[in-house]
Amino acid sequence: EEQAQRGKLYVGYYVVVKWLFALLIGIGTGLAAVFINISVENFAGWKFALTFSIIQKSYMAGFLVYILINLGLVFSSVYIITKFAPAAAGSGIPEIKGYLNGVDIRGILLFRTLIGKIFGSIGSVGGGLALGKEGPLVHIGACIASLLGQGGSTKYHLSSRWLQVFKSDRDRRDLVTCGCAAGVAAAFRAPVGGVLFALEEVTSWWRSQLMWRVFFTSAIVAVVVRTAMGWCKSNKCGHFGSGGFIIWDTSDGQEDYSFEELLPMAVIGVFGGLLGALFNQLTLYMTSWRRNYLHKKGNRVKIIEACTISLITSLISFGLPLLRKCSSCPESDSDSGFECPRAPGMDGNYVNFYCGKENEYNDLATIFFNTQDDAIRNLFSAKTIHEFSAQSLLTFLVMFYALAVVTFGTAVPAGQFVPGIVIGSTYGRLVGMFVVNFYKKLSIEEGTYALLGAASFLGGSMRMTVSLCVIMVEITNNLKLLPLIMLVLLISKAVGDAFNEGLYEVQARLRGIPILESKPKYQMRKITAKEACGNQKVISFPRVVKVADVVSVLQSNVHNGFPVIDHTRSGETIVIGLVLRSHLLVLLQSKVDFQHSPLPCDTRVGSLPIGHNFSEFVKPASSKGISIEDIHLTTDDLEMYIDLAPFLNPSPYVVPEDMSLTKVYNIFRQLGLRHIFVVPRASRVIGLITRKDLLIEDSEDSATELQSTSVRPRC
Amino acid sequence: EEQAQRGKLYVGYYVVVKWLFALLIGIGTGLAAVFINISVENFAGWKFALTFSIIQKSYMAGFLVYILINLGLVFSSVYIITKFAPAAAGSGIPEIKGYLNGVDIRGILLFRTLIGKIFGSIGSVGGGLALGKEGPLVHIGACIASLLGQGGSTKYHLSSRWLQVFKSDRDRRDLVTCGCAAGVAAAFRAPVGGVLFALEEVTSWWRSQLMWRVFFTSAIVAVVVRTAMGWCKSNKCGHFGSGGFIIWDTSDGQEDYSFEELLPMAVIGVFGGLLGALFNQLTLYMTSWRRNYLHKKGNRVKIIEACTISLITSLISFGLPLLRKCSSCPESDSDSGFECPRAPGMDGNYVNFYCGKENEYNDLATIFFNTQDDAIRNLFSAKTIHEFSAQSLLTFLVMFYALAVVTFGTAVPAGQFVPGIVIGSTYGRLVGMFVVNFYKKLSIEEGTYALLGAASFLGGSMRMTVSLCVIMVEITNNLKLLPLIMLVLLISKAVGDAFNEGLYEVQARLRGIPILESKPKYQMRKITAKEACGNQKVISFPRVVKVADVVSVLQSNVHNGFPVIDHTRSGETIVIGLVLRSHLLVLLQSKVDFQHSPLPCDTRVGSLPIGHNFSEFVKPASSKGISIEDIHLTTDDLEMYIDLAPFLNPSPYVVPEDMSLTKVYNIFRQLGLRHIFVVPRASRVIGLITRKDLLIEDSEDSATELQSTSVRPRC
Repeated sequence: EEQAQRGKLYVGYYVVVKWLFALLIGIGTGLAAVFINISVENFAGWKFALTFSIIQKSYMAGFLVYILINLGLVFSSVYIITKFAPAAAGSGIPEIKGYLNGVDIRGILLFRTLIGKIFGSIGSVGGGLALGKEGPLVHIGACIASLLGQGGSTKYHLSSRWLQVFKSDRDRRDLVTCGCAAGVAAAFRAPVGGVLFALEEVTSWWRSQLMWRVFFTSAIVAVVVRTAMGWCKSNKCGHFGSGGFIIWDTSDGQEDYSFEELLPMAVIGVFGGLLGALFNQLTLYMTSWRRNYLHKKGNRVKIIEACTISLITSLISFGLPLLRKCSSCPESDSDSGFECPRAPGMDGNYVNFYCGKENEYNDLATIFFNTQDDAIRNLFSAKTIHEFSAQSLLTFLVMFYALAVVTFGTAVPAGQFVPGIVIGSTYGRLVGMFVVNFYKKLSIEEGTYALLGAASFLGGSMRMTVSLCVIMVEITNNLKLLPLIMLVLLISKAVGDAFNEGLYEVQARLRGIPILESKPKYQMRKITAKEACGNQKVISFPRVVKVADVVSVLQSNVHNGFPVIDHTRSGETIVIGLVLRSHLLVLLQSKVDFQHSPLPCDTRVGSLPIGHNFSEFVKPASSKGISIEDIHLTTDDLEMYIDLAPFLNPSPYVVPEDMSLTKVYNIFRQLGLRHIFVVPRASRVIGLITRKDLLIEDSEDSATELQSTSVRPRC
Repeated sequence: EEQAQRGKLYVGYYVVVKWLFALLIGIGTGLAAVFINISVENFAGWKFALTFSIIQKSYMAGFLVYILINLGLVFSSVYIITKFAPAAAGSGIPEIKGYLNGVDIRGILLFRTLIGKIFGSIGSVGGGLALGKEGPLVHIGACIASLLGQGGSTKYHLSSRWLQVFKSDRDRRDLVTCGCAAGVAAAFRAPVGGVLFALEEVTSWWRSQLMWRVFFTSAIVAVVVRTAMGWCKSNKCGHFGSGGFIIWDTSDGQEDYSFEELLPMAVIGVFGGLLGALFNQLTLYMTSWRRNYLHKKGNRVKIIEACTISLITSLISFGLPLLRKCSSCPESDSDSGFECPRAPGMDGNYVNFYCGKENEYNDLATIFFNTQDDAIRNLFSAKTIHEFSAQSLLTFLVMFYALAVVTFGTAVPAGQFVPGIVIGSTYGRLVGMFVVNFYKKLSIEEGTYALLGAASFLGGSMRMTVSLCVIMVEITNNLKLLPLIMLVLLISKAVGDAFNEGLYEVQARLRGIPILESKPKYQMRKITAKEACGNQKVISFPRVVKVADVVSVLQSNVHNGFPVIDHTRSGETIVIGLVLRSHLLVLLQSKVDFQHSPLPCDTRVGSLPIGHNFSEFVKPASSKGISIEDIHLTTDDLEMYIDLAPFLNPSPYVVPEDMSLTKVYNIFRQLGLRHIFVVPRASRVIGLITRKDLLIEDSEDSATELQSTSVRPRC
């Protein structure tokens, strides 16, 4: 009775902490995003303002200052990453996806990775490289969630005991899922998109109870970001906070579309699929080349590489607009509310850059010599027909595409969302220009085509579907375009799938992260479980095992779990459970359970003896764990015995030997397992469990509970 | 080799048909929704126009006409349902939810149910009852999907063989899931909301591959509906199509909110939780009373009941506004674009009804003597501060709430979404009025509070979360209110959960639909699998069984699956598989597999002998199946034998006897099973399957495939 009471109290505490954590993850990720945004936008704003003010006098001096600021920012980023947090390089999404699929990757959820990711992102994005901060924000959210889940960082002594309630792998994964959603919600200010992204793209095991918590986290992020932006409104945060909550608001764009527009839109979809698949393939080659040659030469090469790319990026983004002839401003500017030319150093269309006359603007500089956020805003903008020339857009497309490919895989935190949107919106706008010229309808907006292009490229590269759709809607606040975005995505994903896998899958595979896909392979149908486990020799332990045997087994092979076999009184062998390598290591290290006699002690199977704390057996997600080499045992120790009964998992999942591997795969994947025992066919069936056996009523009063156990005493 | 080729071809065909079906479900559901909408809006529009034109002369005559039209429509609806399609009564969502959870409910996916649902909805919604067409549309989508999946209706000889590729339960469920999403997408013109509704509310087994297909279906629905509305624009469809694609567009509503508004919003959430939980409880009492007393008395009582409720509804909605004193129109009407008073018979605010002077309007008539869609539009409307008096809103709230409770459970198709929105937006607007009076800020819109109220009531009653949020955003096109909607939903769901379960769960339980929730019950931890299956006697068959034995077993118990036991050469018993009752019945009926000898034939286990078509064993979802009583066997037949080996499932799922029921529950629920064998502990472990055993590379070339099977010949 008392135990039940305590159990209920614990459940209550657990629920409260669960929601508290969701709240904290939301606040933490929201604040981190605000911090990164403020820093990046101020660095970038200040950089452009300074450059613009200098080029009034000398373009050469401005050029130098621009290059140096970019170089400094990128250097700081790559220095932090290489020296301090190597796991923070790249986007982090493939790694998090792997973690949530059940693969532990060293270092990805450490406190130092979090710090490295935050400051590295500021440097790399502020430094004008062709990468975004969205992927890193997902990683940041996941880090915050994981650190909270283990009650702080163990290494830096920031952990607090009372928060360490989340011991199971599943709870940890749930928290990290919340963190991922929070990251996307913070990056795009798209709470629903965040939930769907976590659901569709990163998690492997989804439970519907989790959905509401993930959604809550995303909502908190939205509130935090919105509050911060409200607070920043009166110029308290420098350049940050302009533009409103919706990042690229196109709600004043095209309202309707006619059927003849569907053809060019389908063309955009095909472009997106082709260019996206090409992007995946090129970045695959780049990354594998980097891994195999360049990055093996040490950190110095990584730093030089990043700085070189920064130099090239600055050179192209400043130099190319110089070569471009300026265009004169369109006539009816005062009506549409657009200023032309725009005063330099401010965001907006029609930038005056290296132009001879006063009322001219440089269309290439408007998108190239600008932050990516502003470039996208300009490309998406409605009511600016014929602002860009086809020549400029093509130049920009080729150059930026090349830069994005080259930049991918350098040792800085790098997201692919924003570059993808830039690339996509450029060719989208190009197609839009042709459509406007061809159909000569006033209602067609080039900006809408740019938006569709962005969706198509992301679809063709990342192969996300529902979440991408929702994110696109939330960042542009234009719900009416949803069917068009869907159409474009369907086409681009189908085209892309014909060539290769999605960006994250390709990268995960390259990095050796073995992600189990949701669908079993076709040839698994013909393989049985027995065939799948091959001619491996199963090493099992008896219930009471000699320490020396344990050590020799752990040293001689790398398996993570071992069956434990006992004998019944009638002499038959019987599998009594599974013991994990990590638990054996803890036992060997602590030595308290060593015993002299080879006879089993009396403790019940699966329940820990007194003197053991459950938390000892929990490996912190961010540490390496112990290795068998670290454990030193005396010869006396080796002669002793351990009774494994209290430490094993008494009912591991089993499958009969001739079950098809497809079924086994589904069990494994759906339940998120790490080990399945393949056992011989059963000799008899004790009972059949059907739906009605599982429909137990809630026992608010203990009477029903008593009844349900007393009525069914034995099988 | 050839077989592999054929296999690949089949897979290709399968994929094409899968997407074709998604397309067809989308088109079908979209067209059904358009048809219902056109009918309902024209009936309702014509009804109101006629009534308004008559009351210019005589209120009494108008009243009579109004009552009679409503009565006629409701009578037609209830007549169709009771005489023709009894399964089409109610919302249908609990039943579909049960079906997707694995419970077969007779008649819910029949062709006649589809027809009954479509025409019944037109009558009941057009007849002005306090119910909506959204739940029925979900059911309609599911019916269309299911009928397509079985290749047409078998009863009405509409089936076509080549479409019957979807034989497995899983494929059927996937199609029905698509249908559900299509239904919501069609009802609210909310494609993303439809996907999330299917995911969160109705399905039990979700696979991420399914998501994209569901999304595609929803997109098709959106395109179909939008195209139809575009085609209807030039008054080709009568009253239908006004108001645009977004049902209740509030994008011109409140832009921002201040922190002090959060308190009244939280109050709305609490109201929603309380009123929603009360609604669930009251409808539970009503429905169980109806089931136990009223509806047992036959169809005539059902018809009388529905007609009585129609009379009461007409009486109240016409009579109460008559008692209400008219208010004078607000001053600055020409500026805001609102006409006051509105010409009768048109939708819009400020309806002139039984008013003495010309420039007066009747605020109660504006919401009560109107279609629910228009009432909601008026309640949501921005820039109409002080249009409604608190007294009118309160009267309407109480009356409509009572009507919704009473109407729930009558024998007509009835959705609860729109009534829920009406109720919620009424008290939301009431709270909004107080806030406007209290804070005296110009930026606060009563319509925004009405929207939040609607969200809170639906959250408090249906306990949906993410999907509801997205639906609310999509029907109002106001993304900026998302965090507020989330806040309100969090509160109302939490408050509601403190009292009872969600509406669909309550109703499913009442109707005896045993839905397995996603979470195992707490007390299952202490129950083992062996205890759960109780002291049931397991009846198993030998491999070759006498027909008489099969008949007697099938007659004497109601189990749906039986273990099949064989003997090895060494004389040990071994479980070789599971045979389903339905398959046994097919075997008994066809008789072709009867044999004289009690020796096994040579066919491989689990592969069908020649002369059998797999499709014989598939029970159509919409038919009753065969019963043992329908099968007539001669005495000679009874003396014969059947070899069950070809007809059994050779590797059913097994769990060891002392696995905790929580784990068993998760296997059962996550994999969507119907039977699990409880078996004794294994005597040995043949192999361990871990992640790396499941990472088989795609074998584009057959060389790797050969290798992977030849390298692993035996365990």
